[in-house]
Amino acid sequence: MSSDLIPSNSLIVPTPEEGRALAMKMARLIVKATQPDAAIREDLREIYSQNAGMLLQTCQIVATEFATIAAANNYWRN
Amino acid sequence: MSSDLIPSNSLIVPTPEEGRALAMKMARLIVKATQPDAAIREDLREIYSQNAGMLLQTCQIVATEFATIAAANNYWRN
Amino acid sequence: MSSDLIPSNSLIVPTPEEGRALAMKMARLIVKATQPDAAIREDLREIYSQNAGMLLQTCQIVATEFATIAAANNYWRN
Amino acid sequence: MSSDLIPSNSLIVPTPEEGRALAMKMARLIVKATQPDAAIREDLREIYSQNAGMLLQTCQIVATEFATIAAANNYWRN
Amino acid sequence: MSSDLIPSNSLIVPTPEEGRALAMKMARLIVKATQPDAAIREDLREIYSQNAGMLLQTCQIVATEFATIAAANNYWRN
Amino acid sequence: MSSDLIPSNSLIVPTPEEGRALAMKMARLIVKATQPDAAIREDLREIYSQNAGMLLQTCQIVATEFATIAAANNYWRN
Repeated sequence: MSSDLIPSNSLIVPTPEEGRALAMKMARLIVKATQPDAAIREDLREIYSQNAGMLLQTCQIVATEFATIAAANNYWRN
Repeated sequence: MSSDLIPSNSLIVPTPEEGRALAMKMARLIVKATQPDAAIREDLREIYSQNAGMLLQTCQIVATEFATIAAANNYWRN
Repeated sequence: MSSDLIPSNSLIVPTPEEGRALAMKMARLIVKATQPDAAIREDLREIYSQNAGMLLQTCQIVATEFATIAAANNYWRN
Repeated sequence: MSSDLIPSNSLIVPTPEEGRALAMKMARLIVKATQPDAAIREDLREIYSQNAGMLLQTCQIVATEFATIAAANNYWRN
Repeated sequence: MSSDLIPSNSLIVPTPEEGRALAMKMARLIVKATQPDAAIREDLREIYSQNAGMLLQTCQIVATEFATIAAANNYWRN
Repeated sequence: MSSDLIPSNSLIVPTPEEGRALAMKMARLIVKATQPDAAIREDLREIYSQNAGMLLQTCQIVATEFATIAAANNYWRN
């Protein structure tokens, strides 16, 4: 089974920090799956990383992905 | 029962990677159900896959669908 | 009790596919409740089904409604 | 305790249909609490009920409110 | 511990109505924390309370905050 | 393990107020990770903290992050 969309094909990671990094990575892999052209993606990244509204959209996506990953890891409570 | 909206009519899939692919597919099937005309869909896909804000909307949708699929599969914890 | 907002006044349906169809129907019934005029609704439908950003909004709504319906049905795990 | 924001100050209602109606009502009461002027509200309602994007925003809000109400009522499973 | 962001530093309140009021208050305190200048905030409030799309954004925020507060209080089921 | 994305690499904090502050901090750290240039970030902050719609987006992000942190801490019920 490829892991083009979820690195190491698992939501279980040791720490919240790694959970956060996974959330960002998973979001980027959806951008890649939706827009396979690397040059276009780089142009779009230039746009959204310098546009306040889009930067906030990015934060909203990571927050949603992270909610899932945190639940998967029982919020690293122990 | 047709499975026009959810392939194999199930949310249960073996791995997170397949869960992610299902989330993307389920989102696309809603686009199809809302806009049945394939040519219009293809035009719209050209638009949103090259528009930073809309590409981010796509990520938000997949994140929301994936949250449901991940919960359905108990986050593939075991 | 009327069922203008939720067909058959229940969230419990046999399969994910029917859950998905219910999510779409529930969303449409909110459009209807908010804008009772059928002609205006039809005009608006023409707009959002041919606008990439709005089509994506539609997907986001269905994903949110479906999350509730899937949870109601214990994700059709059994 | 007033019930300006939640009619009958309870999330528990007998059926999904009533849950759905409560979700719509709760959303409207936030509009009222944020914009107390009835005339302005009526003007704004004219705008959003005839704007495809805003109508979709309304659906997203109701979907989010309903998710809470449905969980409160254990999805009316029994 | 100050309670600049959450009045009385608790999510536990006796009734849904108070939960709803807390959700609105918590949202406003984030606006304040993000934009400390009261005059600017008042100008922005004039804008969003008379803009249909932004008024709907406000409802979406309160719905999301309230979902958390309602879960914290077990939906005031008893 | 660095803690560039989540201070002290934990979601567990003693009070709701600290949970709220963590939610804001986590959102800002995603802005930083997406746009490493401090000068650009400061310009963008000037923009979104004086734009009603973007200020509301910020509130939506914090509400989503806080939902996760509150669940992680069992809503500080005890």
